[in-house]
Amino acid sequence: MSEFDPSTHPHRRLNPLTNEHVLVSPHRNKRPWLGQTEAPQVTSLPQYDSDCYLCPGNVRSGGQRNPVYDQTYTFVNDFAAVLPPPAPSAPLAPHPLLTTEPVHGACDVLIFHPRHDLTLARLAVEDIGRVIDQWIHIYRQRGSQDGIRYVQIFENKGAIMGCSNPHPHGQVWSLSEVPTLPATEIASLKRYSFSGSPASEAPRGPKGRPCLLCDYAHLEMHQQERIVVQNEYWVAVVPWWAIWPFEILLLPYKRHIPSIAHLSAEEKSALANILVKITTRYDNLFSCSFAYSMGIHQRPTPSSSSQDEDEQDDIAHLHFHFSPPLLRSATIRKFLVGFELMSEAQRDLTPEQAAGRLRDCSEVHYLDKE
Amino acid sequence: MSEFDPSTHPHRRLNPLTNEHVLVSPHRNKRPWLGQTEAPQVTSLPQYDSDCYLCPGNVRSGGQRNPVYDQTYTFVNDFAAVLPPPAPSAPLAPHPLLTTEPVHGACDVLIFHPRHDLTLARLAVEDIGRVIDQWIHIYRQRGSQDGIRYVQIFENKGAIMGCSNPHPHGQVWSLSEVPTLPATEIASLKRYSFSGSPASEAPRGPKGRPCLLCDYAHLEMHQQERIVVQNEYWVAVVPWWAIWPFEILLLPYKRHIPSIAHLSAEEKSALANILVKITTRYDNLFSCSFAYSMGIHQRPTPSSSSQDEDEQDDIAHLHFHFSPPLLRSATIRKFLVGFELMSEAQRDLTPEQAAGRLRDCSEVHYLDKE
Ligand SMILES: O=P(O)(O)O[C@H]1O[C@H](CO)[C@@H](O)[C@H](O)[C@H]1O
Ligand SMILES: O=P(O)(O)O[C@H]1O[C@H](CO)[C@@H](O)[C@H](O)[C@H]1O
Repeated sequence: MSEFDPSTHPHRRLNPLTNEHVLVSPHRNKRPWLGQTEAPQVTSLPQYDSDCYLCPGNVRSGGQRNPVYDQTYTFVNDFAAVLPPPAPSAPLAPHPLLTTEPVHGACDVLIFHPRHDLTLARLAVEDIGRVIDQWIHIYRQRGSQDGIRYVQIFENKGAIMGCSNPHPHGQVWSLSEVPTLPATEIASLKRYSFSGSPASEAPRGPKGRPCLLCDYAHLEMHQQERIVVQNEYWVAVVPWWAIWPFEILLLPYKRHIPSIAHLSAEEKSALANILVKITTRYDNLFSCSFAYSMGIHQRPTPSSSSQDEDEQDDIAHLHFHFSPPLLRSATIRKFLVGFELMSEAQRDLTPEQAAGRLRDCSEVHYLDKE
Repeated sequence: MSEFDPSTHPHRRLNPLTNEHVLVSPHRNKRPWLGQTEAPQVTSLPQYDSDCYLCPGNVRSGGQRNPVYDQTYTFVNDFAAVLPPPAPSAPLAPHPLLTTEPVHGACDVLIFHPRHDLTLARLAVEDIGRVIDQWIHIYRQRGSQDGIRYVQIFENKGAIMGCSNPHPHGQVWSLSEVPTLPATEIASLKRYSFSGSPASEAPRGPKGRPCLLCDYAHLEMHQQERIVVQNEYWVAVVPWWAIWPFEILLLPYKRHIPSIAHLSAEEKSALANILVKITTRYDNLFSCSFAYSMGIHQRPTPSSSSQDEDEQDDIAHLHFHFSPPLLRSATIRKFLVGFELMSEAQRDLTPEQAAGRLRDCSEVHYLDKE
């Protein structure tokens, strides 16, 4: 029998953050694609669009007018998924299988820049620095309000990721509960801190305990195989357990950092720097404005009720997930459907192959070469 | 303060099968939609298409020719995600965070009918009966081979669900491991069987222990609010914890049934019957051929190594999940992106509202009314 080759033989990998498997079937990427293709991205946008509800000075769907902002601009979502307290409490569940939990919070929209046509990949590093400062501001501000326990910062980029407006913006949903996925990840980090096998020279978490993500970053720095780009403080990898074809996990590797509020000035500017590099490589992969959902996972915000839980929450290690749907070209995506929805994530190329492809991309944006 | 109203006040519900929450934000359905719309479905298809690789007598992309079948037809997927044994074993993991698990199995394609233009909603009940018989046949046959532990039957319907060919067909992926989601569900069923609060008159699982899904079906039959359609043996609900706008859970409620291989003749014909009713209501909701992913969850197939585990697996209770993406019309879908991918599922109308809408649909197909 031939030797095991991850780029030929189907196998499963485990995501230690979620305890879920992904089925890797690299040979499947060879099949012809006869299914749905995506509309090509609009490549040239005006710097200002009078119909855009996010452009400076324009009126939003809720009726308010945006100021003529010249850097970032944050406002409360006109159709927020969660609302500020107080909220009436739900009646007692008739049976434990039919429970309702109250939740409150706030949804903010953060416009990255006044220019309608610039994405993260096209913004100056200083402009991205301002976005980071604004993320920190919202994390701190919302996190100190009304029993908020989690501040979820994210960006949906591209129509195929449900984004309804190309004007560069992200969202922040702040909730009175730690949502499912961050809660699962934090539970895994806590478990690992008591029972993990620390990589010898990796940074440690609070109380000198091992940190799953510090150890993981350390292993990746050593192996290099899945690294897309790295700088003095940050490393971006296609993780061992990636689901999306060109998924990226971005995290700091030099020290344990619970949240964006813990970043030093140098760490912040290195972050702005690597964000430009990641998004530029993404755009260059298929010469298009690369769609993705991006989300920041970090420390829950202090709970007023449990000091013990608060201390334990310091085990969170700041990281960014990028989940981009494209698989083979600017118009051919990966569908996570039937088997993936019903059974288990499945991917068609190895994370090592995906990282290699992204590593081969230039850091000069394709539009600047024309 | 006003009284709690699930169709106005944001709240969270728990999915007891996965232990994940869903954020329900019913007021959000009012927001205007400015994002991507889906291509309208092709409504008239020929009965036979010479370019279709699934039609009788045609050549597939792998080069083989289909026989001139006249009922169902099953063949091995030309681009299978898992392959038969033996497979070379992966080298030892350098660290517990970087583990590889071997997996083997088989991927089958099941064509439902020779007619290119007929979906489940348009097939005769007897034809669906033949599809069910074929599912049972594959479940039994694959389940008795080569250490197969799980037989995942599913259907991707519609281009927006990654289906590349409208010819009515489904797939069956059989694996040497129980995949993530069925494994999670079965763990929940096992836990509940030891600690659940049984609904007094619901059927019991093996050894008289409570069954989470038998109890749940019993509660729904009592409340009626989330039922879309029911017959003598089966009930279809928009589950309490539904993620997709018009998600359906279909399950038997009269007795505990681990798998499709355990169905009586009457239960099988009642299943064919309710499958037509569900898919017809789906098509009628927005007068289109309604896209979805459908999957059957049931008992893992016997393991040769553990008799104890095999007995415990009888706690599985057969059920079907339907995950349809459309939200507001034939061209406006729900995007499960940023917040949903990074934090927690979120929905824009209540399961009760969705069930009411589907209940209001006719059981006569809209194309038969024209
Ligand atoms: O096998 P198909 O129909 O070509 O492929 C479709 O279903 C598979 C199983 O859900 C997915 O992995 C693919 O992304 C999807 O396009
Ligand atoms: O709030 P938006 O951008 O209108 O909406 C988008 O992002 C939300 C959060 O991920 C999703 O719930 C919506 O389905 C999606 O269309």
